[in-house]
Amino acid sequence: MDIKEQSLNKHYEWNGKIEIKSAVPINTREDLSLAYTPGVAQPCLEIQKDINKSYELTRRNNLVAVVTDGTAVLGLGDIGPEAGMPVMEGKCALFKEFADVDAFPICVKSKDVDEIVNTVFMISGSFGGINLEDISAPRCFEIEAKLKEKCDIPVFHDDQHGTAIVVGAALLNALKLTGKKIDEIKLIINGAGSAGIAIGKHLLNLGVKNLIMVDRLGIIDDTDKFNVAQREMAKITNPEKISGNLSDAMISADVFIGVSAPNIVTKEMIESMSEKPIVFAMANPTPEIMPDKAKEYGAFIVGTGRSDFPNQINNVLAFPGIFRGALDCRASEINENMKVASTQAIADLVKDNELSVDFILPDPLDKRIGQEVAKAVVKAAKETNVARI
Amino acid sequence: MDIKEQSLNKHYEWNGKIEIKSAVPINTREDLSLAYTPGVAQPCLEIQKDINKSYELTRRNNLVAVVTDGTAVLGLGDIGPEAGMPVMEGKCALFKEFADVDAFPICVKSKDVDEIVNTVFMISGSFGGINLEDISAPRCFEIEAKLKEKCDIPVFHDDQHGTAIVVGAALLNALKLTGKKIDEIKLIINGAGSAGIAIGKHLLNLGVKNLIMVDRLGIIDDTDKFNVAQREMAKITNPEKISGNLSDAMISADVFIGVSAPNIVTKEMIESMSEKPIVFAMANPTPEIMPDKAKEYGAFIVGTGRSDFPNQINNVLAFPGIFRGALDCRASEINENMKVASTQAIADLVKDNELSVDFILPDPLDKRIGQEVAKAVVKAAKETNVARI
Repeated sequence: MDIKEQSLNKHYEWNGKIEIKSAVPINTREDLSLAYTPGVAQPCLEIQKDINKSYELTRRNNLVAVVTDGTAVLGLGDIGPEAGMPVMEGKCALFKEFADVDAFPICVKSKDVDEIVNTVFMISGSFGGINLEDISAPRCFEIEAKLKEKCDIPVFHDDQHGTAIVVGAALLNALKLTGKKIDEIKLIINGAGSAGIAIGKHLLNLGVKNLIMVDRLGIIDDTDKFNVAQREMAKITNPEKISGNLSDAMISADVFIGVSAPNIVTKEMIESMSEKPIVFAMANPTPEIMPDKAKEYGAFIVGTGRSDFPNQINNVLAFPGIFRGALDCRASEINENMKVASTQAIADLVKDNELSVDFILPDPLDKRIGQEVAKAVVKAAKETNVARI
Repeated sequence: MDIKEQSLNKHYEWNGKIEIKSAVPINTREDLSLAYTPGVAQPCLEIQKDINKSYELTRRNNLVAVVTDGTAVLGLGDIGPEAGMPVMEGKCALFKEFADVDAFPICVKSKDVDEIVNTVFMISGSFGGINLEDISAPRCFEIEAKLKEKCDIPVFHDDQHGTAIVVGAALLNALKLTGKKIDEIKLIINGAGSAGIAIGKHLLNLGVKNLIMVDRLGIIDDTDKFNVAQREMAKITNPEKISGNLSDAMISADVFIGVSAPNIVTKEMIESMSEKPIVFAMANPTPEIMPDKAKEYGAFIVGTGRSDFPNQINNVLAFPGIFRGALDCRASEINENMKVASTQAIADLVKDNELSVDFILPDPLDKRIGQEVAKAVVKAAKETNVARI
């Protein structure tokens, strides 16, 4: 029985992966009077006087909404809001297990940007943060931007920023092993969708100078062959303004990052790369090149999105700790400095004496990760004045 | 320290009254693969094929949204959505404790009927039921009606129907003690807002014939002194078409039900009632007449909304079991038959040998209530063909 069949059976057995518990005792009439009427009137009135008290008197201080419209679920595409829920519930379970964040899954029955934005804004007073998930590009950019504008709580699209943060951490540690400097490498990102663009922006923030992004139609440029988001990226990448397809881009590249399609990286491409090439082939479930092949053709370090190969580049390393930190300091947003700090914290969890070509990222089950990322996030939030406590 | 101050201190200590737990183990890489990627793709695809599978493969089967806009919170009025949350969280805690229903509080940042309806509809795919709470009249009628029209899950405004069900149960048992028949009594409801009107409709369904509703401007009639909902009620109540104020209505009444304002029932009014008068004075926190006074003036049975007097007419007797039943049979709605069945089930929990003028309703902490109400709800749902499993 393969993992998918096993998982389906387990899901039938579980009947849902989250549960809502009462956190207060309700055994006596006095308990009822304190947790509910008539006592509850007093905390209500305190919040009416000062809305910030909602963070102390309700669970808002620890609550994140995990929101999807079901348009880009895993590698499955637009399967509908209800069908996305098993992923959202899984994410909520991970939030709790890895960072003690109370996360609640919400699927929105619309694909319209403004309808989604309005719905999420309308319910945002119940939460301390919004984690967007599996929303297709380019709608996800607009939804995130509009929600950030409207909401006074952090809004974070994990498929973009969570992925970017973990790729960044993997890159920092891989570069340590190659002895190369981040501002001297040539780095290719194949796949200029939401994840690819977010990774690109984040790597620029981390210090990469020579970054080239490639999509189906070749190296992106600012012509109208490419969409707005891609044209914007073209302006701030590819300093030598090279053109061509993926094969052209790969020549003498130090790093390949794929968030694209199965089996599109060839032997020749790997062989054309610089010495000690780093290959992060993250297409799911089948990578751009299988790790054994990449190694055979000369790759020095290979990472994928899969748990059955070394160096899994897994968002779970980032999102629980990021929201833990944002909630802990009641951050108004999750900004670039907080993302860079998270990246560094994840990378630093692998000590120099543990670091190897098959171990560039901490084990996702390592319980220190959530706390260390959270600490780094809080520090960066305070330094950039977005912490509210 | 009074109960409100104690409750405020407790709320600061609790930092929220609900918690979201992971219901699945996440300790190994295999756990991760089953609960999250890559295994989770399979349950997603099953739901895409058949949306009803969302009830088996996600927590939807046991999840109720407790929704407010914060416009009519307890007796506090329009205090805003965030300020209503302590009540909503309290309600969620009660749902869990009394009927093992997972309930999640949602406050909506709008007072506009259509905005609230759209928001709740948009997120309804995450839930198995919607419990509306503390939304002011007449907006609550329209919001409930529109949501029932749009959603394929039960929508229930507890302030209306929960109250009506418990009042109904109290009335059935009180009548047993007086030996009067429900179709022969004269019954006055003072307060023709959302609760009053819902109580009125429900008591008509239970068999009351001579029902007279009174509001601030006197006995309601179908002139334009009264709002649409009140005019509609005027058409189906007050068979003798009497007119006047509350004092006029009370003459020879068998039952007074108040959902109105403090201290407005006088000695003379009680004295003008029929023999063995029943008085349910439910204004909160100060009843229409204090129980000791009502008794002194001749009331035979007195109930209030308060826990510090006998015969507390408390919604917690109804809502947990009603949703437990609706979820258990995946009901598409909560209809009149289900409400009548709940009423009877609550009344029946007080055995004849326990029944007394100071004990007409079961103890809210009696753990049998949720189960018994749920059983009655499931039976009625099946009989009326709204059960989907």
